[in-house]
Amino acid sequence: MDKTTIVGRLDALRNKMTAEEIDMVLISSTDCHGSEYVADYFKVTEFFSGCTSDNVMMLITEKNAYLWTDGRYFLSAEAELKDTGITLMKSGEPGVPTLNMFLDQNLEEGMVLAYDGCTIRCDRGSMFRQIAMHKGAAVRGDFLPAEGIWEDRPTLPSGKITHFLSKDMTGESIESKLVKIREKMKLKKATAMVIAKPDDIMWIFNVRGNDIPYNPVAISYCIILGNEVNLYIPGYEAEDLKKYAKENGFNVYPYDLFFEDLKEFDENDRIWLDYVTCSDRILEILSAKGITSVVGTYPSTELKAKKNPEELRRLRECYRIDSLILCRFLYYVQKTVGKEPMTECSLADKLDYMRSTISDYLDLSFETISAYGPNAAIVHYEPKAGEDLAIEAKGFYLVDSGGQYLSGTTDVTRTIALGEITDEMRKDFTLVTIANLRLLNARFLYGCTGANLDMYARSALWEHAVDYKHGTGHGIGFILNVHEGPQNIGWRILSPASGKLNSEGVKTVFEPGMITSDEPGIYRDGEYGIRIETIMECVEDEYNEYGQFLRFCPLTYVPIDLNSLDLSLMDASDKKRLNEYHKAVFEKIAPGLTDEKELAWLKEATREV
Amino acid sequence: MDKTTIVGRLDALRNKMTAEEIDMVLISSTDCHGSEYVADYFKVTEFFSGCTSDNVMMLITEKNAYLWTDGRYFLSAEAELKDTGITLMKSGEPGVPTLNMFLDQNLEEGMVLAYDGCTIRCDRGSMFRQIAMHKGAAVRGDFLPAEGIWEDRPTLPSGKITHFLSKDMTGESIESKLVKIREKMKLKKATAMVIAKPDDIMWIFNVRGNDIPYNPVAISYCIILGNEVNLYIPGYEAEDLKKYAKENGFNVYPYDLFFEDLKEFDENDRIWLDYVTCSDRILEILSAKGITSVVGTYPSTELKAKKNPEELRRLRECYRIDSLILCRFLYYVQKTVGKEPMTECSLADKLDYMRSTISDYLDLSFETISAYGPNAAIVHYEPKAGEDLAIEAKGFYLVDSGGQYLSGTTDVTRTIALGEITDEMRKDFTLVTIANLRLLNARFLYGCTGANLDMYARSALWEHAVDYKHGTGHGIGFILNVHEGPQNIGWRILSPASGKLNSEGVKTVFEPGMITSDEPGIYRDGEYGIRIETIMECVEDEYNEYGQFLRFCPLTYVPIDLNSLDLSLMDASDKKRLNEYHKAVFEKIAPGLTDEKELAWLKEATREV
Repeated sequence: MDKTTIVGRLDALRNKMTAEEIDMVLISSTDCHGSEYVADYFKVTEFFSGCTSDNVMMLITEKNAYLWTDGRYFLSAEAELKDTGITLMKSGEPGVPTLNMFLDQNLEEGMVLAYDGCTIRCDRGSMFRQIAMHKGAAVRGDFLPAEGIWEDRPTLPSGKITHFLSKDMTGESIESKLVKIREKMKLKKATAMVIAKPDDIMWIFNVRGNDIPYNPVAISYCIILGNEVNLYIPGYEAEDLKKYAKENGFNVYPYDLFFEDLKEFDENDRIWLDYVTCSDRILEILSAKGITSVVGTYPSTELKAKKNPEELRRLRECYRIDSLILCRFLYYVQKTVGKEPMTECSLADKLDYMRSTISDYLDLSFETISAYGPNAAIVHYEPKAGEDLAIEAKGFYLVDSGGQYLSGTTDVTRTIALGEITDEMRKDFTLVTIANLRLLNARFLYGCTGANLDMYARSALWEHAVDYKHGTGHGIGFILNVHEGPQNIGWRILSPASGKLNSEGVKTVFEPGMITSDEPGIYRDGEYGIRIETIMECVEDEYNEYGQFLRFCPLTYVPIDLNSLDLSLMDASDKKRLNEYHKAVFEKIAPGLTDEKELAWLKEATREV
Repeated sequence: MDKTTIVGRLDALRNKMTAEEIDMVLISSTDCHGSEYVADYFKVTEFFSGCTSDNVMMLITEKNAYLWTDGRYFLSAEAELKDTGITLMKSGEPGVPTLNMFLDQNLEEGMVLAYDGCTIRCDRGSMFRQIAMHKGAAVRGDFLPAEGIWEDRPTLPSGKITHFLSKDMTGESIESKLVKIREKMKLKKATAMVIAKPDDIMWIFNVRGNDIPYNPVAISYCIILGNEVNLYIPGYEAEDLKKYAKENGFNVYPYDLFFEDLKEFDENDRIWLDYVTCSDRILEILSAKGITSVVGTYPSTELKAKKNPEELRRLRECYRIDSLILCRFLYYVQKTVGKEPMTECSLADKLDYMRSTISDYLDLSFETISAYGPNAAIVHYEPKAGEDLAIEAKGFYLVDSGGQYLSGTTDVTRTIALGEITDEMRKDFTLVTIANLRLLNARFLYGCTGANLDMYARSALWEHAVDYKHGTGHGIGFILNVHEGPQNIGWRILSPASGKLNSEGVKTVFEPGMITSDEPGIYRDGEYGIRIETIMECVEDEYNEYGQFLRFCPLTYVPIDLNSLDLSLMDASDKKRLNEYHKAVFEKIAPGLTDEKELAWLKEATREV
């Protein structure tokens, strides 16, 4: 983007600040619903900075502009911000103040800090307000930075419901879900639940949309009362939705009416909120009326995580077909590499196309990570056409991909050797394999959380003084977000920064029916990256005098590259686990392969070692 | 005890209740300092019930009496309470209300609930007061149940300081410790710290006492102000203590003056307290004056857990000698069993005597658990002369023991086969061995807590659907309590009962210098019990791009019974860990053995497998 455009936009913003007597403006890269991916309409930080990173906070003052983002984006953001006059604030780097610290140091008495409270998480907003109060500054949470400046702004997503799912497909009626939610509300003495989380809302109403890239959801709000349920959605006028709502006994209202209805609550209400997805605007409206909030994970988030038998039945079949596609793709890569030209992008396109041929395919579940050589060491790498690497018959190729289907949401990563690899690469690959299989084969007592389970995988790497700087697993939705809470698998019980208890995942007990990824990795900067990701279903195991044991069943059935292993590093138990997994892969995938060569490849790729 | 005596004592208590218009009396089995073991003076529940269990709460009403205790004591308590008219409330059993639930169901408007607030933890007291308030009942926290009834009550412990430890012995001066504590107070803006925890007080003042069985401490309170430090202790008049206090710049006052001085604080004070050891009385006095409490683990508890280089130097040598004694004892048992008569008690006496011959021996660190056959399945078994089992040349013998020396506090458990054992026993023994060695050899990143580390050990058992219903490890003091916080090793992040975050151990990060036990076990009710306990020092390992790795070094060097192992269940890595440990045991212990036969035994017991 032309740097002078950015400078011009910031000037326009500063004029507006002067006119409205505002000293500092905060802009966030998120939408009004705490979404992981956002629609173009919400890309306000990109409009004002040219920076395409996720997880951005901008602070604009009369003379300066600052942009905070995290380590995944330092390199790209540096290039994008060049000559814009915006200072890049590298979050987490030594000597770089956090936004909170910066505000604490720079807000002065009498100043006005302004932002759009709809795009700020309520807990962050509370912190900004606290700092401002402490400094004697004022906060305006209703400031719209792009209004009047961003002329060709994309329209707000349509809020169209694209799929009304039958009870047959979802396994549970809206009515039944609401009964369970209201039981939990009663326990917490909540008179209402206010939900801004689109995937929870889609789950409750058994519908899907396509407002957000990769997430099959429509932007919306929901208020659940004791005897009424209201859906607030831009597409409220659609006839099919109106009819569906009538049949299912809920009300449909315009998206903007949500904030008006919020103001109808009074001090006799106790409102259940979620800090992660509720915005500063919502909390402010309620706080201003002295309404008590009950803060906690929504019952819908917890219920949604435990897939019901119908969802599980569909998911197992969905993963079988998705695995079959990936097997055929890996065979193609190994067969073709060194013979025909291929690049990271061409392979991503090939795989994306293969997925799209599946009958109930809707979309990708995230942008395909097709990474060769040193690029695979960048955990969130996305190849860009023209800038991507050509792939040769040597080294590692990593592919992390998934699809949205009407039978489920998938995610899978495999790393394969395309030719010669070094001993160090072989050792690292073996450690990641051991880690992946130990977690997949864990048997554990009911009561374990992700902080316990992480150790099954990570300890195999720690033994060799190696680590990966990400969690081992995340929950996955059913035709919903590929990253879904509340469970996750990660070892850090305390946040190193705050010393406080980490995310809800640390406290979420694993339950049968939860779907979680198992994805340890090793990343060698500038050299190569390895990650092996298998999706697992949590199931009941033995019940005895010690309690209820649980274990995992794989949903993903794709070979782990035997040619990259150093078997001398594996214990007999590790080899047994590998052979058992490969036996299951062959049994699950072979019947779906019609090409003799593919079948021969699978047989070889799943041979006993 | 004669049951009519108990009935008579309860009648006397009820007369007192009537006279003072009290409806319910609560009595706790703890002392005023949250001690694990208590002096005879504090055994008020035993006086009123005949029940010798630890962890008892009694509730006496006009017509009934109830006694709550936990699973360790159900059998003994049932026998002890027979014919006393006291109802045993088995904590944790289905259908048995907790004391809180019982109070909630039975307290009525206008009733008076009374107890001695000095022997009730402040958090439990707060809960009782809350329930009473909710029910419209009153609470009297100054009621002394035994006063006027228990005529031959033992005297209050003397509060005599038996050892003044030089800086040379403790590695750190009182002054230096106070500087660190006051720094932490400043960070929390606390104007004073009120400590009721005897082991912290002994650590701060570099002294020891002998008021409490097995814990080398004197009962005492301490108040740390910005420029003054006060010790409140029954033995305040001792000349040596007066002199020592003068030399070291602290004040010594009578034990009872503590409560008077507490009343001197006012609403400008912020007092640092610890919920686990501060009593209801302390919190009540402060709350009544509207004083803010800062609740949290004391800095002394955290500092004390990280042993300094001098303490570590002494501990290593202390454990070498203690290990040597246990090796010689195990040799004696294996050589003698089946040839000479022996019982659980005779072996405990033998081992206790052997320990007492060590030059700087002070006491046992807890009552020796010398358990044969089915008795070893009782985790806290203590043999009683006359009721103990004769030991024969078959099955398992478990011995869990430790000493207090002027060079440290020890704890160690080994289980050995005395002859034939079944395949199941062999399998269980092997699993416990694998678990113990995996934790001992863990390498882990700084930031791990006991909930992460527990998995190294426990996962080896879970793999076979077996568990042990206790933690894997506890911290250990330096010439102090054998069970010492804040760290521990246990997997449960959430309490199964409350669903809330478990003890402080879950959140305590392991640090170099911490001393912790590693003691997995398997217990087969009515058959046998296996536990292997090695004490470990946490030390620094590699520092690299992933962070600071830590690991453990054993302090305990005693062979693990090779004759009880099924090697076919062990992976190559497990065998490697076993051989490495045994090599170290031989190197450490052999030089101390003068008897050729003992040396030959050690060589055989530590042979490579």
